[in-house]
Amino acid sequence: VSGPESGPDHANDLNSGLTRTLNTLAARRTESLAELLEFASIPSVSAQSQHAPDILRAANWLMARLRQCEGLNVELWPTEGHPAVYAEWLGAPGKPTILVYGHYDVQPPEPLDRWHTPPFSPTVVGDRVYGRGVSDDKGPLLIAVQVAGASFAATGTLPVNVKFLFEGEEEVGSAHLPALVRKQAERLKADFVLSADGGMWSAETPSLTVSARGLAALEFTVRGPAKDLHSGRHGGSLQNPLHAMAELVASLHTPDGRVAVDGFYDGVTERTPDERAATAQLPFSDAGYLAQTGAPEVYGEAGFSTLERQWDRPTLELNGLWGGYTGEGSKTVLPGEAHAKVTCRLVPGQAPERIPGLIEAHLRRCLPPGVTLDVRPSDHSSSAYHLPADHPGRRVAREVLEEVYGVPPLEVGMGGSIPVLETFQQVLGIDTVFFSFAVGDEDIHAPNEFFRIPRIAEGQQAWARYLTRLAADGPA
Amino acid sequence: VSGPESGPDHANDLNSGLTRTLNTLAARRTESLAELLEFASIPSVSAQSQHAPDILRAANWLMARLRQCEGLNVELWPTEGHPAVYAEWLGAPGKPTILVYGHYDVQPPEPLDRWHTPPFSPTVVGDRVYGRGVSDDKGPLLIAVQVAGASFAATGTLPVNVKFLFEGEEEVGSAHLPALVRKQAERLKADFVLSADGGMWSAETPSLTVSARGLAALEFTVRGPAKDLHSGRHGGSLQNPLHAMAELVASLHTPDGRVAVDGFYDGVTERTPDERAATAQLPFSDAGYLAQTGAPEVYGEAGFSTLERQWDRPTLELNGLWGGYTGEGSKTVLPGEAHAKVTCRLVPGQAPERIPGLIEAHLRRCLPPGVTLDVRPSDHSSSAYHLPADHPGRRVAREVLEEVYGVPPLEVGMGGSIPVLETFQQVLGIDTVFFSFAVGDEDIHAPNEFFRIPRIAEGQQAWARYLTRLAADGPA
Repeated sequence: VSGPESGPDHANDLNSGLTRTLNTLAARRTESLAELLEFASIPSVSAQSQHAPDILRAANWLMARLRQCEGLNVELWPTEGHPAVYAEWLGAPGKPTILVYGHYDVQPPEPLDRWHTPPFSPTVVGDRVYGRGVSDDKGPLLIAVQVAGASFAATGTLPVNVKFLFEGEEEVGSAHLPALVRKQAERLKADFVLSADGGMWSAETPSLTVSARGLAALEFTVRGPAKDLHSGRHGGSLQNPLHAMAELVASLHTPDGRVAVDGFYDGVTERTPDERAATAQLPFSDAGYLAQTGAPEVYGEAGFSTLERQWDRPTLELNGLWGGYTGEGSKTVLPGEAHAKVTCRLVPGQAPERIPGLIEAHLRRCLPPGVTLDVRPSDHSSSAYHLPADHPGRRVAREVLEEVYGVPPLEVGMGGSIPVLETFQQVLGIDTVFFSFAVGDEDIHAPNEFFRIPRIAEGQQAWARYLTRLAADGPA
Repeated sequence: VSGPESGPDHANDLNSGLTRTLNTLAARRTESLAELLEFASIPSVSAQSQHAPDILRAANWLMARLRQCEGLNVELWPTEGHPAVYAEWLGAPGKPTILVYGHYDVQPPEPLDRWHTPPFSPTVVGDRVYGRGVSDDKGPLLIAVQVAGASFAATGTLPVNVKFLFEGEEEVGSAHLPALVRKQAERLKADFVLSADGGMWSAETPSLTVSARGLAALEFTVRGPAKDLHSGRHGGSLQNPLHAMAELVASLHTPDGRVAVDGFYDGVTERTPDERAATAQLPFSDAGYLAQTGAPEVYGEAGFSTLERQWDRPTLELNGLWGGYTGEGSKTVLPGEAHAKVTCRLVPGQAPERIPGLIEAHLRRCLPPGVTLDVRPSDHSSSAYHLPADHPGRRVAREVLEEVYGVPPLEVGMGGSIPVLETFQQVLGIDTVFFSFAVGDEDIHAPNEFFRIPRIAEGQQAWARYLTRLAADGPA
């Protein structure tokens, strides 16, 4: 049986449309890079309140770019935090509907003195572009938008129905997105999410990320004297909050690298021997990893490999620790306070909402004498995520990556977290396929973040093929 | 036997000179405060290189003020760091010669947001003046200069020979003063040092500081990855320098509050039961101390009282600890480095030059896996100091303080350090008598440093009486 939506004619139409779209993308290559340079020059740092106007500038820039895709209906969706940008085209009845996810906010650029080029003056050096957010997530996000624009320009249509949801709070934990997704659940209905956030694990081999760790976060402060004191006059007779803080932080891990917080590992499911063997067979070496990171040796929970420690084991990490005088020279101060920022990465079986309470109980139990403790849980929280092995969006992604790169992709885990995955699953009941063309070594969240320029063309080709192949598969 | 330099006539001359000097000082009370406001408005922060021009402005201001004392010969003495200001009057042959010591540099004002008034816009509130350096040491230093000025104005002379040496590096360890004192040893010859730096231990009771702890300092850095990494992707598979730093810092003390560094207590002389009993009888309460500092409880080396912990026991204190993201919001970073600043307070028997090496050996022995260590000893160093019980300058100070305040002063220790004491003793072979009118609760080295305005008049009276009484005693 063949009809207008399947069979040889339909396949021919799709293929010729794909060819025209790919030609248009090829003709727009210079323009595609120029767009990224412009987008990434907007310092849309969601964590820092002084950048709130820049967040709005970035959202406006993105809306204007989406409106250039003639078929799209574009909207700004306010939240109680930074707004989301939404766009949709639903002109392919009977075809699958995908929800494209990404984020237009970026990490803070600090420490500024470590950047070789200004973080918000994106700079091309060889086949890389350097700048905050080029890899996470403005470059990968733009690829999806540029593919839609080229398809409209070349064919007047898209192969499948597409909804774009680009948020402005991913780097601060997507706190207001769950409420937005709940509110707009009807509009956001889709067969699955195709995420432009994420990233491949190496530049050499295509990969498909099929799991992400969850997240829980908190900050705490240790207080001693009501004000900074002279460490000569007072030293030795009052608890120094820096000493107490160090004791507390040191107490959070055991000598074999495990998290020492009672109950932290409750519910963690151990992976099967087969799963562990599959991870062990991936082309990864500690030596290469050390060369990439510059660390003197690998270190972590005893009994697990580096990839297991990154993908399959939960962690508790200090992200910031500070107190007293940190400037040039010497200042003989016994400070009144010391501060710490903590995030945990979680695996399936751990409930993120339980973790801050467990840590607080540990800190209170271990609190040294002479200081008080103030713990502030964060709303930065998400569960771990695993994409089902037989998901159709996962199969299409595998096929497309093999077409573009000539080799089948590796299926890998992700140490990081995308909190919104949990929202999509819980509120919309749909899975998420990671389809980002960032690479994990591109110094996201660090100075000198970069994006590989050839990835723009590769990513555009892959996204265009993805939409076409999905349409060829017929109704979801 | 009576001659022109002793006997009733001489005593009458001295007493009438003192009266005229005191009257002049009383007439200049408003002017004296105005001078301090002007002097303290110069941000002569020796630790911060951007303030180098302000250091010179402060030195120039001080030289101009000294030149107003008509009899003084004033010089700027360069060093390889900040210069010292020197002035002398040697018109009393056969009389004792005192070397007045003080410093015109100040501590950094940070954290700025904790000041209620701008640190370098000295502000009078009630009977206090608030500003960086007003108590440490510009207020006390000016008192000595103002007394000399008033004596010249009222009597055309000074009762004894006086040399002033005001340095610009006390707050960064007086690194270049030893070389200067060696070079100028002949010019600096004196019977003893009268120090305008130091401070009384409470505003209620006059006190005389007869000991100071020594100092040793170092900084160290723990390095992991060559750059900051994403704590999601990398967390759990590399040592976090903040965790390693916390372990190291925690390892520096034992659970009973002692310093855990091997050899740290070598040579420390324990005080006799009589000495301990004298300290125990001083009017001091832990409750009052906690009220003053706002700390929740006292804490320190087991087996010693608070005053013993402050005066008679050595310490190892973190003055600063930092790494990772310390700004607003969250940044999921596994930082490449963590830093610590350490100072130790030392007691008689400890050699300051040995201490950084002992600490470095401890840190290397305790270094957790996965990081490297970089230790930088500081040139901020001094031995502990004790003023002999029978020193004539100590006796005169006791008598003058009883005259001014109506009660005999307490003889107390000082937890802090004045590195130059060691230099005066080793190079010039002379002792130092502390005669500062600062009080230890005046938030020196902290936000909202203040000086009690009535202390200016009290201090001027005491310095004027001191010089007169010393002259009456005849040759040293």
